[in-house]
Amino acid sequence: MSSTGEFDLIKRYFQRPQLQAPVPMALGPGDDCALLDIPIGQQLAISADTLVAGIHFLADMPAAHIAQRCLAANLSDLAAMGAKPAWFTLCLTLPDYNEDFLQGFSDGLVHMAQTYGIALAGGDTTRGPLAISIQVMGWVPTGQALQRNGAQVGDDVYVSGYLGDAAGGLACVHEDAAATSYLAQRFFNPTPRLALGQWLLGKANSAIDVSDGLLQDLGHIISQSQVGATLSLEQLPISKELAAKVPATEQEQLALAGGEDFELCFTLPRQWRPAIQDYAALHDLPISRIGQIEPTAGLRLERDGQAIPMPDNLGWQHF
Amino acid sequence: MSSTGEFDLIKRYFQRPQLQAPVPMALGPGDDCALLDIPIGQQLAISADTLVAGIHFLADMPAAHIAQRCLAANLSDLAAMGAKPAWFTLCLTLPDYNEDFLQGFSDGLVHMAQTYGIALAGGDTTRGPLAISIQVMGWVPTGQALQRNGAQVGDDVYVSGYLGDAAGGLACVHEDAAATSYLAQRFFNPTPRLALGQWLLGKANSAIDVSDGLLQDLGHIISQSQVGATLSLEQLPISKELAAKVPATEQEQLALAGGEDFELCFTLPRQWRPAIQDYAALHDLPISRIGQIEPTAGLRLERDGQAIPMPDNLGWQHF
Repeated sequence: MSSTGEFDLIKRYFQRPQLQAPVPMALGPGDDCALLDIPIGQQLAISADTLVAGIHFLADMPAAHIAQRCLAANLSDLAAMGAKPAWFTLCLTLPDYNEDFLQGFSDGLVHMAQTYGIALAGGDTTRGPLAISIQVMGWVPTGQALQRNGAQVGDDVYVSGYLGDAAGGLACVHEDAAATSYLAQRFFNPTPRLALGQWLLGKANSAIDVSDGLLQDLGHIISQSQVGATLSLEQLPISKELAAKVPATEQEQLALAGGEDFELCFTLPRQWRPAIQDYAALHDLPISRIGQIEPTAGLRLERDGQAIPMPDNLGWQHF
Repeated sequence: MSSTGEFDLIKRYFQRPQLQAPVPMALGPGDDCALLDIPIGQQLAISADTLVAGIHFLADMPAAHIAQRCLAANLSDLAAMGAKPAWFTLCLTLPDYNEDFLQGFSDGLVHMAQTYGIALAGGDTTRGPLAISIQVMGWVPTGQALQRNGAQVGDDVYVSGYLGDAAGGLACVHEDAAATSYLAQRFFNPTPRLALGQWLLGKANSAIDVSDGLLQDLGHIISQSQVGATLSLEQLPISKELAAKVPATEQEQLALAGGEDFELCFTLPRQWRPAIQDYAALHDLPISRIGQIEPTAGLRLERDGQAIPMPDNLGWQHF
């Protein structure tokens, strides 16, 4: 689009006060760069992701849901480091100037900005096939971030929330792009576990968010930490809504490999068992102990104490 | 692409040591976030842009040129604030896994990282229509960044380098995507004026990079500074190569409205006239005094002291 059209568009939809208010900026959008102050003693945590229509979301989903889902997926990366959100930039590629889409998208961003305390610092809009690149920035006390490479033998393996709901929700959204069921909401509006990530600072030895599926993501932890793990299948958290929608065998598959739940998978020394139970109760958030970190490399499954071979259809890559 | 394919690709093409070495990172790519330390007394300067194939670059340009052009366009935003480059994130959307393209693109990034001292901190690769979103991050001493809103009545208006070369070069590249002439190089490998931007700290009252064309970009300065300006057309810097390629009337049009030269336009108090001349001589960089900041709002043109009406075909929007 023309530069002048782009300026109008940015002003109307992306320079709304509610998008800039959550975290102060020394200089907000509208110049060549934004200028940001990082508090002393904190490190900047950054992550960037692109979501493409037809691959990561459906182009006919309500625009507010698209915005929420894109920002949530990025915020989840901050959560997995224990970082506090501060700012994001947005590069929005749009096939045409569609006011309804832009208003809905902007409203979705405002909702997320207000809910999670993150401000829009800049970016651009471009004409082209619908795609959204977001970079989130936050901060974390220097040296304390949760990494993937710190898991220790003997750690418990935990996961927050329920697994497989997003994959189940995607099926609902395919049936009806404007679906509003619990599962559909888990797909289009996942909850970045920011408070949990920050609470885990100084406690967890490792953490990752479940974006590619539990097996792959826990696989990164054990591979980078040079350890192994055994998962107890009967401990996988399955929501009653997912249980009602898909057969039992499929539930487990979705929980292990479905991906995009944006829950946290983390490893905690045994001493924190009472504290994490208290956290779960206080925040009314299921937190399930699903396995153990072990010295032998690789990932193993068991059910009720019996070893189960790794199914072929779960996309598990032996590292 | 599959996550495993993406990991291999990222490792091979985007985790090369030459891409990470230029500026230290507390934690580089490979975790949920990168972790970065901002020096005390500095502000983070950030800017993000998407470039889409067929709009901002030609898909059949050599991949190294595409990478260079995309990163240069973003680095130019840091230059316009007087910021020192530090890191960038890259979101690359690719129609298919093309090793030749990826190798060339990666080589182009390495060249830029080594030339301008910027390290790749993260991002992702996605399958879809070819597009590139880059966010650059740098730092600038707190409170000293060059902004668009500080131009003062009586300031001289300057521009670095030559104007219109990128537009002339685009015509060359349209004729031959692998063209290597001077003009083609000004299109595919523009020079972000980082050293000049940093030198202007504490001297210039305002600065912007020429991305949308001189008239539009200087228009932002006068509008945000609530001043006006007169430009002297005979002072516009036209390269001998552009002069040889296009007729005289067209040269001026390209210089005023061509855009994408990524030169700096800035305003300096008169006291700096000798110093900026010395800078230009020392760095062998043309720096042209092309006008004056005035109290009357709006932009006016003159040639050899005679007022010239604003042509209709330059995309100039009266603010």
